[in-house]
Amino acid sequence: MTEISPAARPAAPTMQQVILRLQEFWSARGALIAQPFNTEVGAGTGNPATALRVLGPEPWNVAYVEPSVRPDDARYGQNPNRLQTHTQFQVILKPAPSDPQEIYLESLAAIGIDTRAHDIRFVEDNWASPALGAWGLGWEVWLDGLEITQFTYFQQAGGLTLDPVAVELTYGLERIVMALQGVQHFTEIQYNDSVTYGDVHLQSEYEMSRYYLDAADTDLNRRLFESYAAEAQRMIDAKLPVPAYSYVLKCSHTFNVLDARGAISTTERARSFGLMRGLTRAVSELWVARREELEFPLGTPAPFEAPEVDEPPVVEDVRTLLVEIGVEELPHTDVQRAQQQVGDAVRQLLAETSLEHGEVTVQATPRRIAVTVLDVAPTEDDTTRTVRGPKVAAAYEEDGKPTKALAGFLRGNGGTPDDVVEAEIDGQQYVTLVKQVPGRSSVEIVAELAAAAVRSLRSERNMRWGDPELTYSRPLRWLVVLLGEDVVPVAVSSLVSGRTTRVLRKASQELVEVESAEAYADVMAEAGILTDREQRRELVANVAVGVANDSGGRVDVEGESSLVDEITDLVEDPHPILGSFEERFLDLPQAVLTTVMRKHQRYLPVVDEQGAMLPYFVTVANGPCDRDAVRAGNEAVIRARYEDAAFFWRADQETSPEDFRSRLGNLTFETSLGSFDDRVNRIAALADVLVEAYDLGDDDVATVRRAAALGKFDLATQMVVELSSLAGTMAREYAVRAGEPEAVAQAIAEMEMPRTAASSGPESVPGAVLSLADRFDLLTSMYAIGSVPTGTSDPYGVRRTALGIVRVLRDFPRLSAVSVPEGIEAAARRLEADGISVDAEACEKAAEFVRQRYELQLIDAGARHDLVRAVLPAADRPARADALLASLSEALESDADGSVLAAIQRVLRILPEGTPVVDSEPESAPEQALAREVARLEQEMAGRDGDVVHLFASAGDLPSVVETYFEQVRVMDPDPDVQAARLGLLARLAAVAVPEIAWTEL
Amino acid sequence: MTEISPAARPAAPTMQQVILRLQEFWSARGALIAQPFNTEVGAGTGNPATALRVLGPEPWNVAYVEPSVRPDDARYGQNPNRLQTHTQFQVILKPAPSDPQEIYLESLAAIGIDTRAHDIRFVEDNWASPALGAWGLGWEVWLDGLEITQFTYFQQAGGLTLDPVAVELTYGLERIVMALQGVQHFTEIQYNDSVTYGDVHLQSEYEMSRYYLDAADTDLNRRLFESYAAEAQRMIDAKLPVPAYSYVLKCSHTFNVLDARGAISTTERARSFGLMRGLTRAVSELWVARREELEFPLGTPAPFEAPEVDEPPVVEDVRTLLVEIGVEELPHTDVQRAQQQVGDAVRQLLAETSLEHGEVTVQATPRRIAVTVLDVAPTEDDTTRTVRGPKVAAAYEEDGKPTKALAGFLRGNGGTPDDVVEAEIDGQQYVTLVKQVPGRSSVEIVAELAAAAVRSLRSERNMRWGDPELTYSRPLRWLVVLLGEDVVPVAVSSLVSGRTTRVLRKASQELVEVESAEAYADVMAEAGILTDREQRRELVANVAVGVANDSGGRVDVEGESSLVDEITDLVEDPHPILGSFEERFLDLPQAVLTTVMRKHQRYLPVVDEQGAMLPYFVTVANGPCDRDAVRAGNEAVIRARYEDAAFFWRADQETSPEDFRSRLGNLTFETSLGSFDDRVNRIAALADVLVEAYDLGDDDVATVRRAAALGKFDLATQMVVELSSLAGTMAREYAVRAGEPEAVAQAIAEMEMPRTAASSGPESVPGAVLSLADRFDLLTSMYAIGSVPTGTSDPYGVRRTALGIVRVLRDFPRLSAVSVPEGIEAAARRLEADGISVDAEACEKAAEFVRQRYELQLIDAGARHDLVRAVLPAADRPARADALLASLSEALESDADGSVLAAIQRVLRILPEGTPVVDSEPESAPEQALAREVARLEQEMAGRDGDVVHLFASAGDLPSVVETYFEQVRVMDPDPDVQAARLGLLARLAAVAVPEIAWTEL
Repeated sequence: MTEISPAARPAAPTMQQVILRLQEFWSARGALIAQPFNTEVGAGTGNPATALRVLGPEPWNVAYVEPSVRPDDARYGQNPNRLQTHTQFQVILKPAPSDPQEIYLESLAAIGIDTRAHDIRFVEDNWASPALGAWGLGWEVWLDGLEITQFTYFQQAGGLTLDPVAVELTYGLERIVMALQGVQHFTEIQYNDSVTYGDVHLQSEYEMSRYYLDAADTDLNRRLFESYAAEAQRMIDAKLPVPAYSYVLKCSHTFNVLDARGAISTTERARSFGLMRGLTRAVSELWVARREELEFPLGTPAPFEAPEVDEPPVVEDVRTLLVEIGVEELPHTDVQRAQQQVGDAVRQLLAETSLEHGEVTVQATPRRIAVTVLDVAPTEDDTTRTVRGPKVAAAYEEDGKPTKALAGFLRGNGGTPDDVVEAEIDGQQYVTLVKQVPGRSSVEIVAELAAAAVRSLRSERNMRWGDPELTYSRPLRWLVVLLGEDVVPVAVSSLVSGRTTRVLRKASQELVEVESAEAYADVMAEAGILTDREQRRELVANVAVGVANDSGGRVDVEGESSLVDEITDLVEDPHPILGSFEERFLDLPQAVLTTVMRKHQRYLPVVDEQGAMLPYFVTVANGPCDRDAVRAGNEAVIRARYEDAAFFWRADQETSPEDFRSRLGNLTFETSLGSFDDRVNRIAALADVLVEAYDLGDDDVATVRRAAALGKFDLATQMVVELSSLAGTMAREYAVRAGEPEAVAQAIAEMEMPRTAASSGPESVPGAVLSLADRFDLLTSMYAIGSVPTGTSDPYGVRRTALGIVRVLRDFPRLSAVSVPEGIEAAARRLEADGISVDAEACEKAAEFVRQRYELQLIDAGARHDLVRAVLPAADRPARADALLASLSEALESDADGSVLAAIQRVLRILPEGTPVVDSEPESAPEQALAREVARLEQEMAGRDGDVVHLFASAGDLPSVVETYFEQVRVMDPDPDVQAARLGLLARLAAVAVPEIAWTEL
Repeated sequence: MTEISPAARPAAPTMQQVILRLQEFWSARGALIAQPFNTEVGAGTGNPATALRVLGPEPWNVAYVEPSVRPDDARYGQNPNRLQTHTQFQVILKPAPSDPQEIYLESLAAIGIDTRAHDIRFVEDNWASPALGAWGLGWEVWLDGLEITQFTYFQQAGGLTLDPVAVELTYGLERIVMALQGVQHFTEIQYNDSVTYGDVHLQSEYEMSRYYLDAADTDLNRRLFESYAAEAQRMIDAKLPVPAYSYVLKCSHTFNVLDARGAISTTERARSFGLMRGLTRAVSELWVARREELEFPLGTPAPFEAPEVDEPPVVEDVRTLLVEIGVEELPHTDVQRAQQQVGDAVRQLLAETSLEHGEVTVQATPRRIAVTVLDVAPTEDDTTRTVRGPKVAAAYEEDGKPTKALAGFLRGNGGTPDDVVEAEIDGQQYVTLVKQVPGRSSVEIVAELAAAAVRSLRSERNMRWGDPELTYSRPLRWLVVLLGEDVVPVAVSSLVSGRTTRVLRKASQELVEVESAEAYADVMAEAGILTDREQRRELVANVAVGVANDSGGRVDVEGESSLVDEITDLVEDPHPILGSFEERFLDLPQAVLTTVMRKHQRYLPVVDEQGAMLPYFVTVANGPCDRDAVRAGNEAVIRARYEDAAFFWRADQETSPEDFRSRLGNLTFETSLGSFDDRVNRIAALADVLVEAYDLGDDDVATVRRAAALGKFDLATQMVVELSSLAGTMAREYAVRAGEPEAVAQAIAEMEMPRTAASSGPESVPGAVLSLADRFDLLTSMYAIGSVPTGTSDPYGVRRTALGIVRVLRDFPRLSAVSVPEGIEAAARRLEADGISVDAEACEKAAEFVRQRYELQLIDAGARHDLVRAVLPAADRPARADALLASLSEALESDADGSVLAAIQRVLRILPEGTPVVDSEPESAPEQALAREVARLEQEMAGRDGDVVHLFASAGDLPSVVETYFEQVRVMDPDPDVQAARLGLLARLAAVAVPEIAWTEL
């Protein structure tokens, strides 16, 4: 498709017009237009028109404005984009229709958004409110990079699974209208023709901000919270869910007020969340029960009827097979996974048939998984199948006639006694029939294959969307199954095959009939869709580099590799666009700039030759668009985000690190583990213990202590609250600006390193010490409370934590002075001082978990498995184990015939564990020879602990001496004294032969 | 105008469409569309978009939906018309435009109401919320008898006078939509095409009703109230009106919850209202101060500029004058008053001129006051005017030349010394000039006259509407001033004269140019407007009778005289329409049926020959309309109202009178006088005292006691809460149905009688006793707290109370055993037992007030003033005074030559007050003769105390004896003993001559 040229843009609608048009739009589509709720809610979801009505089987289509109160977002009306009350337009479609995205896009057109000119994207965003027992999967919808709508398939609410599923659309009206009107501050929005948003709401924004941030009486609000909760409970007891829910909302708002005032202690937060969750669940159950009592006045969905499919066609030629599974925009992480899953399923199914076919290709984009199989034969070859009957012994009467059993078997399988073949199965003789199986038609197999392909799709989080049976990451919406020109009819649950595919949403004709499987590639090419991921990735990278060139800068495609991957899986038709921002924002820390670009916007930063940021970025639109409009939109977004960041940057510097640090008590870390204040205190105490053990210099000790005292202070800064991945990074920036020594600033930052397996670790010793203290505490506390990684779930990143410990200990061998179990033990002692009990088993499990990570890491790095196993006894000090591994590896290479190893192993195999070393005077020559060798080696290895290379190099005659010894000496002599002396000598040899190595594993 | 025939009626809009259309309508007219407030409000007025924005000078046009919560209206969703949450559509137009009624009517058309076919009326309804310090004047707008909108010119809010004035429109959406859709229960409203109002709201109605009426925790809500009030005060102290106001609203809602739960004690209510009023005022003042600090961002109104008027015409002929003052619908009580005021003003002004003119006619309707003056001469005759100069003594020098003073005077008045005339003024000699004053033109005088007519308009409650100067009952909108064909230009403040009048709003051409003053009558006739009130009244009465005939019944035009008057002043073009209601409602007490008709709907009841209700009514539409539609609409309204009444009737009978009586403690009577429970207890105690004094039979005593124990119980019934004028009437109905004896039921009802001077009083003795007890308590308590009638203000009806006492005492002479002061004294003692102090002066003032009422009543009834004065000494027992008056009157007639009276008066004039009677043996003949006469009269009058007729009839020779006595006897003899004896004899005569009569007044 060619680029769309800018159309004449009509005057932007006012805020009021947008609301009226959305109401008209949804009303015309049958939605009830409800009113905002008459008590403060944090979001449209809170309104009972959503929260209660999504429960139970009754249909419910509703739309309404909801002024949503978020005390935490109060900014005195100064921040251009953040308001304590923002205006949501909320839509609930229950049951979810089959085309909610299409309807939604029409609604955008209704408010004057040219959906063809702009870059509109559905970007994965899953929503959950643990406090309300609610979650759903969906997207944030982007308009030229701006999040304008939350689009969710609501899966659970009030702890109850929703059936049917509802679609929830939440339009962020201020953002939409700011974009439409091109204004930079919410106060400038034209509300109607005569007044601005500021005229209408600014004073209230200011005053309510004052209330929420400074003035609210916390004691009073605490009392209100308790009163509301009590009344909610009373109403639940009275079986009145509606008033009860109203009080739950009041609870929730009051909690938010207290939170914004910084008045929620750890204990209160945990208790309050639990309380509200419990109340919400009870309300939800009551509501459903009441509706059931009322016999669901709005009706219940009709039961599912399996769709009928056409008669299958007759295909007599060798043809290409196309299976295309159409899906609503997948999360980027699911694209490659889907390709893999479908590929595996298709290949496995084909392998189970004898259908001849050519090359199998599986491609995936965010909206489709396409399988093509070349040269599919019209039928399988015929085959035979052996059917087992009764045992031979039970098959014939004495007179040789068939028994009833055999007769029945023959009858059942359409055979005669003459067809019978005897065969041995599992050591028994059976009668069998060999049946001719005619090859099935390709059509039949393809139908199975398509179904298998569809059913193979699984994600980490799967959802329902209205299909009675299928679940997946996002709804499956169409299925093309073509064998040549013919549609192969198949119904997978409610999904029925056809020949209609969907191309880009902005295409003039979104629905396209695919003539034949062979024509599919052309259809996609014509539509501008690159189904081949590698091609797509290459295009993204190349064109990004190309447009960056226009700015005189470059995109670090290598460095941004994972972002390029992500973008590749977000678009079907990549159109990179260069955007710029104001140079003044370059004063912000580079990490801030790039974090915003990467995490929030998926923009590729543009840098100069030295890697320094330039005031440009590359965004990759999906499909052709009005480049100027899309550029302008994205520039406005990044400007707003940088404006926010600049606001935080300035505001945060008005508070000292100590002050921020003192606020960590208000941040819950984990319910039973207390606040971040508690956690940082533990880390500091643990760091003290470690420092003792490491015997560091005074400067380092001072650095560790100061850094520990300020540790994680930036969690309380606005910047990190907003951009949590900058934790540590911002601490360093702020600490330096607050006058802390660079070493301290670095150590605070390095406490948070390494963040991931791929990212860098601490470089300074104090940083490394704090990193360890942090991770020992985290690891141990998670094992203490049993929050250990299971399957794909690892909420607190325990895997990452264990790997971090290994990493730091490997990078800083001197820190191995404290082993992993010792570190864990020290952390456990500190936790117990906080009243959190940690039993020995938990400690051991934690240590074992670290060992396993280390082991896997070595193996992943390509080390020989037996060598790894051999050094595992030293794994509690990974640096030591690293050294042993290296040394052992080299030594073994030097031991070309393996004789030294064999000698050592021979000794160790006979030696019971724990045998004491005995210094004796042996009598026999072989013994004396061995004793001499041992003594020599003891001398050689003195001060060379663990130096396997030297050991082997010094082995000399040891192999022959050992061999002679075992030939001539009976170690296990009946005389206990003799035996002890002989074993004791072997033990001396074992002791000198690097006992940390598990030689017998080799 | 001819009747409008039914048009094809389009499908009725859904609730949702009505909301969307109103939003579109007001949005298109420049109003901001705001959102409902996010805390519970009782009405759209509560939303800060009204409550705060009407304050101060800034313009503000806004419209929004407001789900309005009235816990007191909770009915479990059962009542067809009453909901705990109903949906208001609220509009504020500030400043008030010049045509808000016209815009409003267009909005009705926008939601599908054919304003020509229906009978749409603006019926006086003034709004006040003392708790919020707010009030305004305006109307309820009727659609075929259904109140669909509250239309108010907002005058004051938060205790602050509004400048500019705002127009507030409050549409009652449920009612409007029920009428449009023709459904009988709110649950049946089609909310949108797929769901009903019941589907959307019924469960919530039920559950919130349960909460408000049964389940809300009153202790908790009381704590919430205190908490909210405290937080509001803190925010006021912090100078943050917006959060403060939000807490005021929470206070108010919580109060309403407690009230609905019946949990508000007298003290709490008074305190709570005071608290909320104070908070609201403080918030309002703060808001205005903040806006002023912000320099009124939305601007301030332009200063008023007096309009320019055209050059006056030259009128040379004798012509008719027309002055028509156009006004928005006046309250019916203002129509005749306006006619009077304008007539007085015009006649007075004409009288002050010498302009010749013919007949002056003043007519008035709810929308116009029209003055016509026939044959107005083109000019006044010329006249002279004498101007006073200096005193003669100061006018001339010694040489006879004018002094400087005289010279200055002459210069100033354009005279010469020859023109001077000397004249005596106030006994001094002055020089004067006699100036020729040429007669003014009729045009000049008419301009003054028109202005005087406009300014003469005053009502009991006057309002501002945007004119900088004029105030009146309702806005003055146009002014026609024509002298013949010519417009006489005049501007009265912002009101400018012209020739454009407005006829009926539903006319195809509402604005009509009046060609000439002479043509005015034809214009009105053509428009169907009856400006002549008498004609209008006659038409109302006649046609009402006519249509009632159609039903076989009749309208009691005599009995309904005041209602006919009221209707006459509500319409310009009366079109009576006969409506019917279901016969089953005839089971309701007749008082209920007629009260609803008269008070709420201004319908004339239709009765049969015996006066029993028939299931019909007559409503009088204003102007032609689609009779079927209007009839149907009115029938639906009466049906709904009767449905309500029937609901109350049934519900109330489920509670016993005792139970209702026990709830009176929750009803405040007056802040410092306690609850109705306190009051009824006082009445009962007082009745006990009275019963003692009256010496009644046992039955009556028992009846009084039982009735007193239940007294006023019906104030707690739903029926009386709804229809307060039925207090007493319902008590009787309910008491009888609860099994109370008829006598008791009657006494309870009669306790409330007489309601007004015109209505009937108690008929039974127990009823009369209770009526007196009630009134003595009320009168005395009002004097105790100083709440005495002043001018037109008499909130507790003290005048009516005093007249009631007089009435009962006159109707039941035996009850005069307790005089008015004695009754007051007894009441005072009981009040003091309740801790309410009543000083002697208050008691005396109260008694004096009653005496004055009695005196005025006698005079109003046509009694001779001197006779009334003569019997006033007995006024504390009005029955006695009545008897004396009658007897005295007859006696005087018998005393044709007045000799008996003269004799008595002669004696009394000489007799010092308090002279003791002396029984002496007189010596002289005249004395002996008089003594004989006195003795004879003493004998005659024995047992005939107060029988003046017998006294006069028995007078015999008394006149001559008295005459002889005074000729021959010197009463004031120097000898004190003689004097005492002579005076003592005269005192004997005085004592026999009915000393209760003030003979000297005659």
